[in-house]
Amino acid sequence: MTQNIYDKKEFFEGYSQLPRSRDGLEGAPEWPSLRALIPDLHGLHVLDLGCGFGWFCRWAREHGAAQVLGIDVSEKMLARAAATTHDDAITYTRADMEHLELSPSSFDLIYSSLAFHYLENLQRLFSQMHRALVPGGNLIFSVEHPIFTAPAHPKWITDAAGHNTWPIDSYLDEGPRSTDWIAKGVIKQHRTIATYVNLLVSAGFSITHLDEWGPSREQIASEPEWADERARPPFLLLAAHR
Amino acid sequence: MTQNIYDKKEFFEGYSQLPRSRDGLEGAPEWPSLRALIPDLHGLHVLDLGCGFGWFCRWAREHGAAQVLGIDVSEKMLARAAATTHDDAITYTRADMEHLELSPSSFDLIYSSLAFHYLENLQRLFSQMHRALVPGGNLIFSVEHPIFTAPAHPKWITDAAGHNTWPIDSYLDEGPRSTDWIAKGVIKQHRTIATYVNLLVSAGFSITHLDEWGPSREQIASEPEWADERARPPFLLLAAHR
Repeated sequence: MTQNIYDKKEFFEGYSQLPRSRDGLEGAPEWPSLRALIPDLHGLHVLDLGCGFGWFCRWAREHGAAQVLGIDVSEKMLARAAATTHDDAITYTRADMEHLELSPSSFDLIYSSLAFHYLENLQRLFSQMHRALVPGGNLIFSVEHPIFTAPAHPKWITDAAGHNTWPIDSYLDEGPRSTDWIAKGVIKQHRTIATYVNLLVSAGFSITHLDEWGPSREQIASEPEWADERARPPFLLLAAHR
Repeated sequence: MTQNIYDKKEFFEGYSQLPRSRDGLEGAPEWPSLRALIPDLHGLHVLDLGCGFGWFCRWAREHGAAQVLGIDVSEKMLARAAATTHDDAITYTRADMEHLELSPSSFDLIYSSLAFHYLENLQRLFSQMHRALVPGGNLIFSVEHPIFTAPAHPKWITDAAGHNTWPIDSYLDEGPRSTDWIAKGVIKQHRTIATYVNLLVSAGFSITHLDEWGPSREQIASEPEWADERARPPFLLLAAHR
């Protein structure tokens, strides 16, 4: 089973302080790009895989979704999600995505933000998601970008002139990467873009959009410390339909 | 118009010495992966964009293609292609791919190897290719991988322990990159994977396969100096159909 780092006290407390935890979707710089991929939600049945504190579930309801199911493996996150949600059309369920059983043709949209790169096995989940969508239904998800997850030592190298480069050294070697992010020894699965795309295609999906997300020039103007994020994109956003 | 580096004497002579020029398809380490994407060619009408010395055109005919058109901008390469081809079903034509006009529904397969990254404008060409394919027809192409083309200074950085990293520093900034490869000042266009995928989708193509090519472990066993090519893939292979 996937490491459940979010329920470790040190990690949970650190993660809770991030802008995306405190301020929700607006605290995530990639949200405008992700939002641009989301269809009109009116009347739709929505599944959020890795729903965390439930920010997207509540947003989806505020934007017309008929029913929203949020799934997460973290007990602590789901407890906070439930405590801050007052809406009978939103349900939260604790489950491990690698062993999920979803009913056929039961969702119009499946959404997932920065969750799939924790999973060791995506093939089964992608098949489940395809089966769980209605024909024409959409899958929209983000993961950490493979350029971001590839390095054995994911730290900027600064040369004598102060120029930063990101040290790619094992891009094609897929598998776990242990990083010290909020807590020590957080395990993420490095996969290539090709693997994400080919898994989607072989599960039956049609790719509709791919975004190697980095901050826009406008975002950098207001947050200059984000400039390096254009040098190597931190997130990969994918949209596909059944 | 795109830089026609292949007709410069110094470049042409240097390029002619590469294994892929001397030995043809078998001299290109990515050929087995590209070949795996090619459908049964019997009776098909094939277009090769950036056909160079005509190796693929001849291979396609040997594998059953009914008619093959090879297009290239290089006069010198086409002269050698013509001189080494004795087959009335293969035609070579000199044209600039950025201004190509192709007849609708005239090809079953469009193939291109390591040519599109020289072009400044792909959008028009992708629309032309879509129109030129029969419904269900296939497009298969390779380009230099965006991780390979991104850096301002595309040279391995070797640390004190002898470990090599590839210095990503401007991945999201698309546009020309000038490199000294065979000759000085060779201009290639850096594009992200997202741009290739989204241009294909918006031209009407369905993505069927993406390969971020690096040598297999077997290839490295016989050619140990290729090991670094697994650290950052040199080529991107894409397959799509109309």
